[in-house]
Amino acid sequence: MSRRDFLGKSAMLAGGAYPAMMALGMLRAAPAHAFNLEGRVAGKHIIILGGGLAGMTSAYELAKLGYTCTILEARQRAGGRCWSIRNGSTNTETDKPIATAHFDDGLYFNAGPSRIPHHHQLTLHYCKELNVPIQVYNNVNEGAYYFAEGKGPLSNKKVRVREVHNDIRGYMTEMLAKTMDHGNLDAALTKEDAEKVIEYLRAEGGLDTDKLYKASARRGYSEAPGAGDRPGKISDPHKLADIIHSGLMDPDFYNVAEYTYELQMTMFQAVGGMDQIAKALEKKVAQSLKLGAEVTKITNTANGVTIEYKDAQGMHSLNGDMCICTLPLPVLSNINNNFSSDVSRAIDYIDYMKTGKIGLQFKRRFWEEDDHIYGGITHTNNELTQIFYPSYDYLGKKGILIGYYNFNDKAKRTGELSYADREKLALEKGRLVHPQYDTEFEKSFSVSWHKTKYNLGGWAEYTTDARKNQYPALLKPDGRVYFAGEHLTYLNAWMAGAFESARSVVAALHARITEQRIKYPAQGAKG
Amino acid sequence: MSRRDFLGKSAMLAGGAYPAMMALGMLRAAPAHAFNLEGRVAGKHIIILGGGLAGMTSAYELAKLGYTCTILEARQRAGGRCWSIRNGSTNTETDKPIATAHFDDGLYFNAGPSRIPHHHQLTLHYCKELNVPIQVYNNVNEGAYYFAEGKGPLSNKKVRVREVHNDIRGYMTEMLAKTMDHGNLDAALTKEDAEKVIEYLRAEGGLDTDKLYKASARRGYSEAPGAGDRPGKISDPHKLADIIHSGLMDPDFYNVAEYTYELQMTMFQAVGGMDQIAKALEKKVAQSLKLGAEVTKITNTANGVTIEYKDAQGMHSLNGDMCICTLPLPVLSNINNNFSSDVSRAIDYIDYMKTGKIGLQFKRRFWEEDDHIYGGITHTNNELTQIFYPSYDYLGKKGILIGYYNFNDKAKRTGELSYADREKLALEKGRLVHPQYDTEFEKSFSVSWHKTKYNLGGWAEYTTDARKNQYPALLKPDGRVYFAGEHLTYLNAWMAGAFESARSVVAALHARITEQRIKYPAQGAKG
Repeated sequence: MSRRDFLGKSAMLAGGAYPAMMALGMLRAAPAHAFNLEGRVAGKHIIILGGGLAGMTSAYELAKLGYTCTILEARQRAGGRCWSIRNGSTNTETDKPIATAHFDDGLYFNAGPSRIPHHHQLTLHYCKELNVPIQVYNNVNEGAYYFAEGKGPLSNKKVRVREVHNDIRGYMTEMLAKTMDHGNLDAALTKEDAEKVIEYLRAEGGLDTDKLYKASARRGYSEAPGAGDRPGKISDPHKLADIIHSGLMDPDFYNVAEYTYELQMTMFQAVGGMDQIAKALEKKVAQSLKLGAEVTKITNTANGVTIEYKDAQGMHSLNGDMCICTLPLPVLSNINNNFSSDVSRAIDYIDYMKTGKIGLQFKRRFWEEDDHIYGGITHTNNELTQIFYPSYDYLGKKGILIGYYNFNDKAKRTGELSYADREKLALEKGRLVHPQYDTEFEKSFSVSWHKTKYNLGGWAEYTTDARKNQYPALLKPDGRVYFAGEHLTYLNAWMAGAFESARSVVAALHARITEQRIKYPAQGAKG
Repeated sequence: MSRRDFLGKSAMLAGGAYPAMMALGMLRAAPAHAFNLEGRVAGKHIIILGGGLAGMTSAYELAKLGYTCTILEARQRAGGRCWSIRNGSTNTETDKPIATAHFDDGLYFNAGPSRIPHHHQLTLHYCKELNVPIQVYNNVNEGAYYFAEGKGPLSNKKVRVREVHNDIRGYMTEMLAKTMDHGNLDAALTKEDAEKVIEYLRAEGGLDTDKLYKASARRGYSEAPGAGDRPGKISDPHKLADIIHSGLMDPDFYNVAEYTYELQMTMFQAVGGMDQIAKALEKKVAQSLKLGAEVTKITNTANGVTIEYKDAQGMHSLNGDMCICTLPLPVLSNINNNFSSDVSRAIDYIDYMKTGKIGLQFKRRFWEEDDHIYGGITHTNNELTQIFYPSYDYLGKKGILIGYYNFNDKAKRTGELSYADREKLALEKGRLVHPQYDTEFEKSFSVSWHKTKYNLGGWAEYTTDARKNQYPALLKPDGRVYFAGEHLTYLNAWMAGAFESARSVVAALHARITEQRIKYPAQGAKG
């Protein structure tokens, strides 16, 4: 049978073609993330605004096609939000003096993206292509805490995630199993199926033979099992009412976020800081990159684009054939331009997330040594929202944890504080969970993204209305200016958005210049 | 306030003393895993049978106290079940010729323990003390598959774990929420609390405003979201009846094992193979270790113990003051001794798990490149039971996955096969899930623990009866012979069992020799 015959036959077998083709090694010819656009282009100059991941990826891919690029980046560093704070890192918030981090060498935290979902194939593709090693980001940790400050019977107690997960699972399955015993709930279920479901509920909830939830080793031990005559001791579950009244079934705590597609394990991070991805890209585009170049005006002209920018030497004007603008919308909103009114309105209208993080350096990894928490997240109902434990240097000496990572109103209030007061807040609230803060704390560095110059927001946060009515205006070029970045995707807040958007815009721009019909992605990407 | 006053006051505040003491740094003086027994002992010779983790740890800790130890290890390598298979590894199964692994350099799989729970503090303590770096073992992966061979409507389909998890969660919460709408199920719940529970169920299950479970992004996309006009496509959930009829709610699949205390994330492994722990210990006890020394007789004498063993030079007899026997019970059962009848009966009676693994080397990490599976476990209802994907070298070139890891009857049948037939089975069943096996497979190595000379079993598997009636006999020394190993703990199958047992027996032996009262552990260990 020829390859052609085979493919013809396979096409008829819905769902069967893929394994069959794999078996013949046919799918290897076109790796999922090849981006082999046809046609090389010489003598075209593309000006790219912003040296974050989207900007640098655009330049990197365009250079492969023969284009000459200039990336204008306002800061003295590339990478944008893909940024790890380590000794010597500086940040400028709009209402504050410049801040410099003084962490110990080798320690860092990711101020921006800190997690790569395993299905963000393009992010992993670039890690591989750019030789950036990755390691697991341990997003799920049953040993971390829920901490309800001043609420209910479990107020101010460190309750392990595993206790809450297993208690709630137990109570809910018990309720449902009881009900099902009294009659088939679901008309679609046969009696036999209903019995299967009850069996499942018993296993799922860890119920006893009477279908009651009682003490369970799943929620941990009050005394650990060991050698000899030490079987371990299990304590009683929390009462359901106590869990409810302390708010541990509220969204503050009960972490349905863990179920989100993007936050499901396996998750990754770049070894040595997420900005290793940006640094690797930077090496590839170093010749195109102008640091300290702040864009002041964007003009579509009759034959191209003119970009005005200022740097340490003064004002400059630069002409290009096309432009890719990756500036965050709140920043772009303050830059002179001659965009159409639809585009201008969209730029002004689309909201960005208020969000901030603080990194706290401790002289001892007490969360590991005393609390046995290795990575993962403690959830609180207070201003901290979350404490992130580092997913690197396990069993090491010192460490930086993220003392708060908050959003919206909480992030707004935290953002208003001075650096010193943010530190004070993080320590005061954090020591309720970890009294070790008092003796082990060394130094902090905080970033409020909506306050940070050249960002003015965490990421685009679309309302249904904005997605429907404003977003489409930015998907087409305005004259010769294309818009790219996570904000022009359905992957907001993720590095994958920057990569996908860059490729999408590079494909569109290249198609226009070479007068080809190019569809990006070539095939519908599989989820 | 003096330290003494402070402690006096703190003691009265139940639960409040710990944070207060932490705040004063008082708890740091005694780290959780200090094992500082008092009194040094010179001129005492302890013979340790078995150079696995329990035996080597015993020698390591005894040497700190001044004892002279001899470890007799039958194999030409130490470490016992803490063993990683790499190029040149050999194994002897009772009914087969010696087997040698021919994997590529740098690739390995852990034939024995492959996971360290984050709460196995003593295992992590030894990793730290012995400078063995650890990395996350990614036990939970929502992107792996359930694969029901020949069963029901989802038969022979690769169903992502996330699909099943989220579909079942959706259907179960929908059923319970519906029922609760019709009246309060639980007399203990107030109306307000019941409403809270319904709100929780909606969030937990991803139900819509009518409390119905419909399509959900949590279960993944049929077309991934991307840049521009690509919001992604979500497919319909599996029907509950289909999930039931394919057995995906049966224990084969629906992985309540993930909820087990010992299998909850965070989990770890030693970087470079779990046997790095054994190798690090081996360095510490190298002077005491006799490899290739097979014990043939254990005799309690009037003043000590006499151990007979054979090695390449012939038969030997060795006298010691005391003995610690860490040999697995099925092995010990075949060694001459003058133990009491209670001890002999226990040794013969206690069951060991039948279990086996096969490592398959592939020339390409297709599970990552094609299937986007990074670590974790695919569950099947066939002889494979599980496929384990490696938690190291992510994005690397080649890799070894564990093609089956099975137990009991399945392991018994697999164990009976020749090495070639085990490979054939792993490939035939595995290619149903991963057709890439056909083109990418290179070589295999399999270990059947119950067939492996000097082990004859995976780990002690206690019935309630054996735990109650046989186990206690082995917790006391028989004359001057102490018994140690995972089988003498409530941590069966875990390396922590070996460590805990070794310490427990070292403490007991040292107490007897120095006539001290020593309780191990010093305080009840916290769970």
